[in-house]
Amino acid sequence: MTAWNYKTTIRLHQTDAAGVIFYADLFVMAHECYESWLEPVTSLAGILEQNILVPIVHAEADYKLPMRLSERITIELSLIKKQTTSFILQYRFVNAEGLAAATAQTVHAVIDSQTRKPIPIPAFLEKALASL
Amino acid sequence: MTAWNYKTTIRLHQTDAAGVIFYADLFVMAHECYESWLEPVTSLAGILEQNILVPIVHAEADYKLPMRLSERITIELSLIKKQTTSFILQYRFVNAEGLAAATAQTVHAVIDSQTRKPIPIPAFLEKALASL
Amino acid sequence: MTAWNYKTTIRLHQTDAAGVIFYADLFVMAHECYESWLEPVTSLAGILEQNILVPIVHAEADYKLPMRLSERITIELSLIKKQTTSFILQYRFVNAEGLAAATAQTVHAVIDSQTRKPIPIPAFLEKALASL
Amino acid sequence: MTAWNYKTTIRLHQTDAAGVIFYADLFVMAHECYESWLEPVTSLAGILEQNILVPIVHAEADYKLPMRLSERITIELSLIKKQTTSFILQYRFVNAEGLAAATAQTVHAVIDSQTRKPIPIPAFLEKALASL
Repeated sequence: MTAWNYKTTIRLHQTDAAGVIFYADLFVMAHECYESWLEPVTSLAGILEQNILVPIVHAEADYKLPMRLSERITIELSLIKKQTTSFILQYRFVNAEGLAAATAQTVHAVIDSQTRKPIPIPAFLEKALASL
Repeated sequence: MTAWNYKTTIRLHQTDAAGVIFYADLFVMAHECYESWLEPVTSLAGILEQNILVPIVHAEADYKLPMRLSERITIELSLIKKQTTSFILQYRFVNAEGLAAATAQTVHAVIDSQTRKPIPIPAFLEKALASL
Repeated sequence: MTAWNYKTTIRLHQTDAAGVIFYADLFVMAHECYESWLEPVTSLAGILEQNILVPIVHAEADYKLPMRLSERITIELSLIKKQTTSFILQYRFVNAEGLAAATAQTVHAVIDSQTRKPIPIPAFLEKALASL
Repeated sequence: MTAWNYKTTIRLHQTDAAGVIFYADLFVMAHECYESWLEPVTSLAGILEQNILVPIVHAEADYKLPMRLSERITIELSLIKKQTTSFILQYRFVNAEGLAAATAQTVHAVIDSQTRKPIPIPAFLEKALASL
């Protein structure tokens, strides 16, 4: 069990003519999980208003099992690494049989939206990261 | 109050550089509501396996208020019209202040996936429609 | 023949498990046509910088023939109606056989991004509309 | 210069409320480049009909510069590695200033759509890969 789980269902628009989820939609789902995790602490909208950007500077995914229409998926979020001005999150996509259908990672840099220079992870993000 | 409500949150990928939801994503959200409503009766995946297609032959939307990042939206689903081989659904997008930010309609035809000819609404769909 | 044609190809991410284009992606394609038409006169990015918003306040589509993976589509853009502070565009999706697979319409209101009040269609948009 | 270049323009639906391209859309663009490269040899639709699947088993991207609305991007495709039953493609996203705004890689496995077992890269794909 992880500290943050996000439950979702594969919807028609996420599938393609090969009958399974289109690979880029895995990254959309990962980001929905990320946004849901931020919600109790802040909202992405709130972050943008503070002139802080947390752009993803690297993303990667491994696809192990096809995810099909109407399949229920639990995304388990965990923190892989935390540095002064960046952090790495991992997403494990677990299907109804309890198998990891895919994993993904996103590397987030924290920057000032004006200068676009790295800044230390702000307190509210530190708090959210501490929960993982 | 309507018979089927679907709660969702505006996610970053649904917004655009103008800061609000991109207009086509309203139709994606409407379809997620539609799929969630079908779930207790059948799944879209189940329908496809029965050689039934329920293609949308007409769709329309009216945009009244901008929907912004992290905003919570309740989509109220209702049945507007039911005919022998087709039906019309309406979606009302209600924001946190209780205001209708948008409405949408989808016209669904029921067809045989082999012949692509209209067929009567199948029993499981009749049942689902009766609940609205 | 219309004054503005936009050629595109149905890509895998636009199709769904039913093997055809997902209905909301028609509206994405229509907007790509709209953006391509604006390019010779201005860019959407340029419009946003002038504190003008041209939100879509109504959209609708009729789906006549399935559009499948790798199918080449020409979108024919035409002007349906022009009023002081709004205009209506039509999109005709013509497949390789020359048949209209779908049509769509978008109603655009011109507003000031600060006051969100209607303003007259600006000169550069009038110029673009005059070409249709 | 590479053997296959795909030119595209950042469209409104690919941007988000932070004003730049949403990270998952980079993978959508990469796949459009991949599909355009296959077109002279075969279509993805043609591959699916031959009971061959070429699923992406790994994908990754590095984001270096923001890509903004209306920005013109050239995606340069190259072959990184070819093995008996899989291959790795690289995408370089070059902006109007000639700078690499991002890079991405996709690892493709070739499998039989019935058995889902690895099979050797078919002749038409070998031919396409030989051009890179």
